[in-house]
Amino acid sequence: MKIGFVGLGAMGEAMAMCLLKAGHELAVYNRSPQKADRLVEEGAQRADSPSEAARGRDIVFSMLLDDDAVASSTFDENGIMDGLSKDAVHVGCSTISHALAIRLRDEHAARGQTYASATVLGRPPAAQAGELFVILAGAAAAREKVRPALDAFSQRIFEVGSDPAHANIVKLSLNFMIFSTIQQMAEVFSINEKAGIEPKAIFEILTNSFYTAPVHRNYGKIMVEKDYDKPGAPMSLGLKDAELFLAAGGDLRVPLPTASLIRDRFLTALAAGDDRRDFSALFEYARRDAGLTD
Amino acid sequence: MKIGFVGLGAMGEAMAMCLLKAGHELAVYNRSPQKADRLVEEGAQRADSPSEAARGRDIVFSMLLDDDAVASSTFDENGIMDGLSKDAVHVGCSTISHALAIRLRDEHAARGQTYASATVLGRPPAAQAGELFVILAGAAAAREKVRPALDAFSQRIFEVGSDPAHANIVKLSLNFMIFSTIQQMAEVFSINEKAGIEPKAIFEILTNSFYTAPVHRNYGKIMVEKDYDKPGAPMSLGLKDAELFLAAGGDLRVPLPTASLIRDRFLTALAAGDDRRDFSALFEYARRDAGLTD
Amino acid sequence: MKIGFVGLGAMGEAMAMCLLKAGHELAVYNRSPQKADRLVEEGAQRADSPSEAARGRDIVFSMLLDDDAVASSTFDENGIMDGLSKDAVHVGCSTISHALAIRLRDEHAARGQTYASATVLGRPPAAQAGELFVILAGAAAAREKVRPALDAFSQRIFEVGSDPAHANIVKLSLNFMIFSTIQQMAEVFSINEKAGIEPKAIFEILTNSFYTAPVHRNYGKIMVEKDYDKPGAPMSLGLKDAELFLAAGGDLRVPLPTASLIRDRFLTALAAGDDRRDFSALFEYARRDAGLTD
Amino acid sequence: MKIGFVGLGAMGEAMAMCLLKAGHELAVYNRSPQKADRLVEEGAQRADSPSEAARGRDIVFSMLLDDDAVASSTFDENGIMDGLSKDAVHVGCSTISHALAIRLRDEHAARGQTYASATVLGRPPAAQAGELFVILAGAAAAREKVRPALDAFSQRIFEVGSDPAHANIVKLSLNFMIFSTIQQMAEVFSINEKAGIEPKAIFEILTNSFYTAPVHRNYGKIMVEKDYDKPGAPMSLGLKDAELFLAAGGDLRVPLPTASLIRDRFLTALAAGDDRRDFSALFEYARRDAGLTD
Repeated sequence: MKIGFVGLGAMGEAMAMCLLKAGHELAVYNRSPQKADRLVEEGAQRADSPSEAARGRDIVFSMLLDDDAVASSTFDENGIMDGLSKDAVHVGCSTISHALAIRLRDEHAARGQTYASATVLGRPPAAQAGELFVILAGAAAAREKVRPALDAFSQRIFEVGSDPAHANIVKLSLNFMIFSTIQQMAEVFSINEKAGIEPKAIFEILTNSFYTAPVHRNYGKIMVEKDYDKPGAPMSLGLKDAELFLAAGGDLRVPLPTASLIRDRFLTALAAGDDRRDFSALFEYARRDAGLTD
Repeated sequence: MKIGFVGLGAMGEAMAMCLLKAGHELAVYNRSPQKADRLVEEGAQRADSPSEAARGRDIVFSMLLDDDAVASSTFDENGIMDGLSKDAVHVGCSTISHALAIRLRDEHAARGQTYASATVLGRPPAAQAGELFVILAGAAAAREKVRPALDAFSQRIFEVGSDPAHANIVKLSLNFMIFSTIQQMAEVFSINEKAGIEPKAIFEILTNSFYTAPVHRNYGKIMVEKDYDKPGAPMSLGLKDAELFLAAGGDLRVPLPTASLIRDRFLTALAAGDDRRDFSALFEYARRDAGLTD
Repeated sequence: MKIGFVGLGAMGEAMAMCLLKAGHELAVYNRSPQKADRLVEEGAQRADSPSEAARGRDIVFSMLLDDDAVASSTFDENGIMDGLSKDAVHVGCSTISHALAIRLRDEHAARGQTYASATVLGRPPAAQAGELFVILAGAAAAREKVRPALDAFSQRIFEVGSDPAHANIVKLSLNFMIFSTIQQMAEVFSINEKAGIEPKAIFEILTNSFYTAPVHRNYGKIMVEKDYDKPGAPMSLGLKDAELFLAAGGDLRVPLPTASLIRDRFLTALAAGDDRRDFSALFEYARRDAGLTD
Repeated sequence: MKIGFVGLGAMGEAMAMCLLKAGHELAVYNRSPQKADRLVEEGAQRADSPSEAARGRDIVFSMLLDDDAVASSTFDENGIMDGLSKDAVHVGCSTISHALAIRLRDEHAARGQTYASATVLGRPPAAQAGELFVILAGAAAAREKVRPALDAFSQRIFEVGSDPAHANIVKLSLNFMIFSTIQQMAEVFSINEKAGIEPKAIFEILTNSFYTAPVHRNYGKIMVEKDYDKPGAPMSLGLKDAELFLAAGGDLRVPLPTASLIRDRFLTALAAGDDRRDFSALFEYARRDAGLTD
């Protein structure tokens, strides 16, 4: 297929590369153009604007940092909306607010265009390996059209119906499950440590009994090893995503008390300057509150 | 070995039966004596008091409902303490407070007796199948002596050192992991349902991506199916265990904000009369707060 | 002085009327023009746009519902910014976000204009009586210029320095003090009621001992009498203001756990459809959680 | 009247002295007998046990530190229960659990004795000046009998009906109002300080507008002045009382989310070693979480 790709950060570049390797004809755009270099070397066409990346394509993906980046790349002059054909699909993969997902859905529809959401679960190495989990939502025809392209970078595609905004609610939910699992374990590790039981010991028990999921094993390991400084998912991103989840709760009038608690914990960590550490460093603030120092 | 067993509820009876089948010579005691009938039929000896169940035994297990039951069965006249030999071990399996675990450890020691904790993870069917997870703590010699007996009802034994009270902290932690996972999923299912996404849909995504642990699958399934009325772990037990975890936090001066939140949710459910439903019915209170009615 | 006034809701109209009665020469603007009728009858000049209300004036006040209304009245074509003289002052009285307060300060400054904040505490009857409390922040010269006008509707003016955004933080803080006092009393009244003590009895004790402030007496009385349906401060406004306070906490990286809790309680009330009741109806949700029904 | 008084800490001694000065015939008991010396010098009779302090008296007051002290002084051998005549009244003034208040009521009744509660609000200087607020509950005849004695140390007596336990619920509620007001102000002062507004400035605005109660003025002042080290109400007492309030909520099945939050904050402060500082030092932990250091 002829595919456009807007947004070539660590995730976007890896996903675009998968599409290229799968044989799709790719046009790519990134605000800092050098991020497109490797893809262009591998055969992608360089676009000079989001609209150019979209023009004449069957599908255009956007995979950008936040609401502002998605909104400007879509709605501004030379944005995706300007270039998208009526029979093409704009597929939003970014982690954005529920409100923006609805706006994208509605403004594209008002222009006779089609918007679908395909949010993704997984970090850059999984994207490189083509092993993301994808949450797909949109009109049935759009989903059918998009699936073969998604296959290029996903190990499994979950469909959640015709409303694109649903894929965003699901994505925010999945991220919240990560944060709240970290906070659970932070409390558990702290009380055990204060009682004289090594976090590693309780971690081994957890992950060899009923708490064996990747979310336990992967984040618990970082916490036990205090390995917070590898490039991963930074605390600032944690706060952003927790706030998006809470904002969705506000829009839909759903109180989310555990998420409220987690936002407060992220703010505590950020107030102490931990912006760039992995968000599993929430453990250190549970430790601090327990009077554990070292 | 010659083993005594005090407390023959659903868990205790199943564990005792495993010991019997493994060839141990068993004396059993329960306050309501008829609960011992099946074991006596299978060859156990009926004891008329905890002290008699303990007297002359290598090991005496206690598996009772709560602090009061353990304290009276141990410290009262004709309690375990009265019958326990100096070279025997009292192995506490009950889910009790950190404070009582310390008292058991210290009072037995003051009498020259040995106390160890072997808390268990799993429901009665797992106990019947001999597939519990066991958390064992106590003096090295006591642990060595006790392990062969524990093998009768456990799939795996985790050792957490020489302080018996540590096995209780770990057990309370594991239970908290269950409650807080239920509350996480309750919030997630509620916002999805309010947005128009079936809890079953998000449950499938969770349990086929990063949230694949038994704790997700087992409790999530009950929640999705609203199957709260099968005999399981009732809300009142959830409150008891959350309060024990918080009390341990109080003793050790460790704030546990997620646990505090969960205690409040249990109280809300109990105030509405849900004492006997499975504690995963917390979902219904997240739904109520979200304005979901049906 | 020659004064402009933009925004003639219940508060704005009352404040403008005070200015008129104090002898100021007033131009008024409201999007729905009939809201200006009474003021025009009393001698105010009708302006056809915010910029016209601002043009040639010494001071222009804005008193609008929310961020969107303030931003469009200020920054859009024919907004206040278009009409404001370099030697005049735009005085923002609205309850707005910390972020917008900063933007107003900075964009006016970038145009060589002066912005000050004069947020107000009190309900419409206090505004009519000229008995508001005013929180004033801005450059010293601007504060000096503005004070005589503020005297028209205030019983007391508190100055909080030269940064206009400070008056907004203070205002959001004062509103939070109201909400959290309501929630405190909601918990207290609920446990007393469940124990068999009438809320009125505990209310009398509170307000005749150490809890004698207007915030206790006024909101406690509404709660005890369940007098939630008089036009007052609706739940939806409570949520808005709690979210503004939390957003300021986010901007400044300050966790505000009590405010997080209150946002969740407002959402619970709104999910149940209580948008238009007085926000002290939070009591009814504390009662519901306590299993109190009537 | 002939009055006994058990428990001569700072509060109890001051209350007993008021009774003596009012002309009552007083027998006093304290576990550490030297605490009775001043009262004996002033004319009180020294009792050698709680039962002796109660024997032959019309009223015996108990004013002790905690549940354990009250229970042992009442129920143990030579306790109040042993000495109390059938036509006398045991008046409990201590801040105790709801559960113990019920036990005192019921066990006295079972012995044909009368128990009433008269909990007090105020610190030692108010007790010395005879200006406590008293919450009185018990049978009508007992209340009538007791009131003239209470007049000796109270500025006002609030009656809350015939169930003695009600006076304890009210007392725990009043203490919670203090803690939660401190936490409110801690959050408000922190966000203002981080924004660049001195806590003193916002304190002045609060206490000169709608937040003028003693609870605001007295604790706010300590917080603004960081005057936490004067002997006052220590953090450890704050935790104890918050836990009693939460335990009452547990007994009555009333979730108290603000109280849960406050317990966590007290634990954080105690984990850091602040046991002996005034509990208004919660402010310092709100500051720490906001990244304010100095």
